[in-house]
Amino acid sequence: MFNALKRFLIGRPLKSHELGEQKLNKVKALAILSSDALSSVAYGPEQILLVLVSISAIAFWYSIPIAIGVLFLLLALILSYRQIIYAYPHGGGAYVVSKENLGENPGLIAGGSLLVDYILTVAVSVSAGTDAITSAFPSLHPYNVLIAIILVIFITILNLRGITESASVLAYPVYLFVLALVILIIVGIYHIVTGAVPADAHSPIGTPVAGITLFLLLRAFASGCSALTGVEAISNAIPNFKDPAPKNAAKTLMAMGFILAVLFTGIVYLAYYYGIVPQEKETVVSQITAKTFGRNYMYYFIQATTAMILVLAANTGYSAFPLLAVNLAKDKYIARMFTIRGDRLGYSNGIIFLAVMAIILIIVFKGRTEQLIPLYAVGVFIPFTLSQTGMLVKWVREKPQGWLVKLIINFVGALISFLVMMIFFITKFGQVWSVLIFLPLIVLLFHAIKKHYNAVGEQLSLSNNEPIPPIEGNVMIVPVAGITHVVENSLVYAKSLGTVQLIAVYVAFDRETEAEFEKKWKKWQPDVRLVTLHSHYRSIVQPLTKFIDTVEHKAAEYNHRVTVLIPQFIPKKGWQNFLHNQSSLLIRGFLLYRRNVIVTTVPYHLKK
Amino acid sequence: MFNALKRFLIGRPLKSHELGEQKLNKVKALAILSSDALSSVAYGPEQILLVLVSISAIAFWYSIPIAIGVLFLLLALILSYRQIIYAYPHGGGAYVVSKENLGENPGLIAGGSLLVDYILTVAVSVSAGTDAITSAFPSLHPYNVLIAIILVIFITILNLRGITESASVLAYPVYLFVLALVILIIVGIYHIVTGAVPADAHSPIGTPVAGITLFLLLRAFASGCSALTGVEAISNAIPNFKDPAPKNAAKTLMAMGFILAVLFTGIVYLAYYYGIVPQEKETVVSQITAKTFGRNYMYYFIQATTAMILVLAANTGYSAFPLLAVNLAKDKYIARMFTIRGDRLGYSNGIIFLAVMAIILIIVFKGRTEQLIPLYAVGVFIPFTLSQTGMLVKWVREKPQGWLVKLIINFVGALISFLVMMIFFITKFGQVWSVLIFLPLIVLLFHAIKKHYNAVGEQLSLSNNEPIPPIEGNVMIVPVAGITHVVENSLVYAKSLGTVQLIAVYVAFDRETEAEFEKKWKKWQPDVRLVTLHSHYRSIVQPLTKFIDTVEHKAAEYNHRVTVLIPQFIPKKGWQNFLHNQSSLLIRGFLLYRRNVIVTTVPYHLKK
Repeated sequence: MFNALKRFLIGRPLKSHELGEQKLNKVKALAILSSDALSSVAYGPEQILLVLVSISAIAFWYSIPIAIGVLFLLLALILSYRQIIYAYPHGGGAYVVSKENLGENPGLIAGGSLLVDYILTVAVSVSAGTDAITSAFPSLHPYNVLIAIILVIFITILNLRGITESASVLAYPVYLFVLALVILIIVGIYHIVTGAVPADAHSPIGTPVAGITLFLLLRAFASGCSALTGVEAISNAIPNFKDPAPKNAAKTLMAMGFILAVLFTGIVYLAYYYGIVPQEKETVVSQITAKTFGRNYMYYFIQATTAMILVLAANTGYSAFPLLAVNLAKDKYIARMFTIRGDRLGYSNGIIFLAVMAIILIIVFKGRTEQLIPLYAVGVFIPFTLSQTGMLVKWVREKPQGWLVKLIINFVGALISFLVMMIFFITKFGQVWSVLIFLPLIVLLFHAIKKHYNAVGEQLSLSNNEPIPPIEGNVMIVPVAGITHVVENSLVYAKSLGTVQLIAVYVAFDRETEAEFEKKWKKWQPDVRLVTLHSHYRSIVQPLTKFIDTVEHKAAEYNHRVTVLIPQFIPKKGWQNFLHNQSSLLIRGFLLYRRNVIVTTVPYHLKK
Repeated sequence: MFNALKRFLIGRPLKSHELGEQKLNKVKALAILSSDALSSVAYGPEQILLVLVSISAIAFWYSIPIAIGVLFLLLALILSYRQIIYAYPHGGGAYVVSKENLGENPGLIAGGSLLVDYILTVAVSVSAGTDAITSAFPSLHPYNVLIAIILVIFITILNLRGITESASVLAYPVYLFVLALVILIIVGIYHIVTGAVPADAHSPIGTPVAGITLFLLLRAFASGCSALTGVEAISNAIPNFKDPAPKNAAKTLMAMGFILAVLFTGIVYLAYYYGIVPQEKETVVSQITAKTFGRNYMYYFIQATTAMILVLAANTGYSAFPLLAVNLAKDKYIARMFTIRGDRLGYSNGIIFLAVMAIILIIVFKGRTEQLIPLYAVGVFIPFTLSQTGMLVKWVREKPQGWLVKLIINFVGALISFLVMMIFFITKFGQVWSVLIFLPLIVLLFHAIKKHYNAVGEQLSLSNNEPIPPIEGNVMIVPVAGITHVVENSLVYAKSLGTVQLIAVYVAFDRETEAEFEKKWKKWQPDVRLVTLHSHYRSIVQPLTKFIDTVEHKAAEYNHRVTVLIPQFIPKKGWQNFLHNQSSLLIRGFLLYRRNVIVTTVPYHLKK
């Protein structure tokens, strides 16, 4: 039944050689990997205005030079990641680049930072999308958390079905959003050109503003940079592209950069020219749309696609997290299970882990995850800085043809990323200090895991260990609970194994049953030695373990091994297990993990 | 660490022969077994007035004849249960009496009804006590559910510590409550006698009342009978008494009946004479106390002891449920685990099960369990009726000396109980219909469980089964994941078992690794046959199971048995298990429950 449900939700399993068919073409890749970056257009310009409004509306003209600064950083990042794609065609992004060029710890900081960031992406963007939905339908407001969780589960199932399938479903809303904003910008500019918008709604560029400080402008710039989160996703996901993967990825990256630049510039410009003031209850995009079209069907179309893209921004996390996890797991920094492909050839463990963590965040923060946004922005600019610096080092070290241009591109990128990161730390320290605690902890955990895997590898390898000498004898201990067919079954098996020393053990709670059992046993199995143990405290495991310890100690002297043979009857139906004491499970678990004995379970399947 | 906490909470384990010291004397038994019955005095009289108030305050004089009716039923029940105690000195109450005299199904109906009822007792009385506490401290009101759960856990720990210890702790509040109410009644009557209370506050007995109907009077009577719940507890708990158990139990029962009668009569009489009208926000007992003492320290003392006894009423459930469960489990109608004594010689599985179920009820009903009270009252009068009828049949059948008197006592008890039950069904059908659905379901479940245990017993017994012929050969299959020290360890073990056919199985995901592995294996273990399986879907369990099925099929022809030998390395620390795929656990579980093969786990303990 569970299997049928699984098949229904995620589809038939795919064979390993069908992997090629699961690769993405550029159109689908753009949709699936850029939803995070593109969705930031819905809130990035607003972040700039929110800082400027603290001075006065006259200061709004600064949004134009700030936007130019953001565009400049965007250009630097896009060109820089384009170089990363060609330099690391197997993907990896910030983690691989930092590790190879700067060393292990910078790589781990970049990787850990991004892992956490993708979880935050999912939680934050799904919560934001849910807010957009419940703003439209206020009666749904009490169910915010539930709706957010359902959306996460929906996106998770799509991703478990496989990359191409989720891309096919998710491409429409992404392109609809782009289309909607392009129409908005064109019509808006048409209005401006035809003079339908009063030219005095805004202060001219260059108007002197009292009280403006560099600190405030930097803060506005840093806030605007939150529109650049998600830019690195494509460089992590190169393995998902159709061949030639690096070339396709680079083209997709350029296309994304172009679209992002157009939308961002358009929205900032319209907001400035219309003289939009950020409101608590209405977003900047909503105000621009209302002024351009009035509240007609176009308004609702644009609002609806915006809500959708906010939810779908989560999908970038679903594309990038599992691939980054594979890279970390291959290097043994996180659990190996993240490298296993699921039924549909996606890295399902990574997908499920991401979903569970995001749901936990949504529940803990009761759907109010906007408190996490600064954390999330810092978590992006740390790996940005590290990967650009890594490329810098690479160019200096390798000096390939035309390395000076490449160096300059990455140097500018690294410098601006670093500045943005520092501005975040300085201007929003109260909200981001926790990064300084959990990031080192994550790096320590990575090291602990790697150390463990290395230790296991050493202990498993043949070359590091003496060959195991042959065992010279076996002692088999059969705990018996009564004189039954199930015990008989186990004894017949033990006897068939030839020259083993066989001991049956019975744990009695009082002297009478003990004597009686011994008598019965002598009659039934005169050739099998019986040891009876007395349990004052009505525990079976304790006296049994003590006895096994004694035997094991003695056996070790002669290079003999001890096997505990557990007779177990298996009821016909699952629920019937509740009706039987699971002593055998308990004994088995206890012995296997605590003692050096072999545990054999001899099942006896009941027929009714 | 878990063990240390357990020891701290419930104390050191006791040896089986210390059981005698855990028995109760009469004083402690009265406290622990009568808290449910005595606590009903706090709400029973109010229930009568609540029905009468629907006509008019003039009708309140009817509370006196109704109370006499309740007292009459109480007398009948007490005498009747006294007879049950002597007739069934090993305890059992309604379940045993009904089963032996009326047959299996009536017994199961009585037993199932009481099991559910004790769970309801705990949930209802703890919730009522919590309400009393949070009424006194309104700021605690939002934490009602949490407080109720903490109280349940507290009572559970007391009971897990053992019967005598919980009795020692719980005796004080019970006797304080009795003392408080006795003082209240004496002072109240003194006020009446000295004329401090106006004699015209109430209508004289016999005043004609317009609109009174038999239906209403019966309903008031039935409501008043809710004060009798818990009367049967002592007859269930005879095994907990010090020797001579039946005699001590009978004396305790009489004492409880006497105290209950005095308190009930006193409260009804004072309420009538004072002309108390039931209020939504103040209980009848609170009104009587305020009129008698004013709101001074005596008032708060009586209110506090009342709140305590309401919580402690739950304890009757804790005393009676586990003993009833033992009786049902011995007869194989419920899981055998209920017959096992825990570390402190109490039936801890019953105690824990009761607590978990009560907590679930409290959570589901969000602490508003008063909706369950009618259900709970019906659930008591069904077994009352059945056990009295059972005794009736017993006397008619056995005709011992003086049987006619005994017969009359039980006949009266059975008749009134039956009437009360019918009145509940007729006057409150909307609240109690669910009994008619879940009681048959519980009885069906009892039968299903008994059928299963009987089937198991048959299949396990030697006399019902042919002796198992000796096995003529063994095939051992070792699934291997690589060429490692752990695999070597398992192979050395397998080889030490002598003449077994040994097959190593490797599951490959692609052809290259397959060929490579075969080459390496031939070099390493030329004498162990290797079978490689190809897995298209990256599953290990599926191809392995298919292969094992083939081997098993072949082996069965020759009376050979198949053993699957699983090499497993055990990490040094528990958390490290998360870093390894638990394939061996998965394979073991799957094979053991679905296939007829023996599963041996060969552990290899890592040292670092």
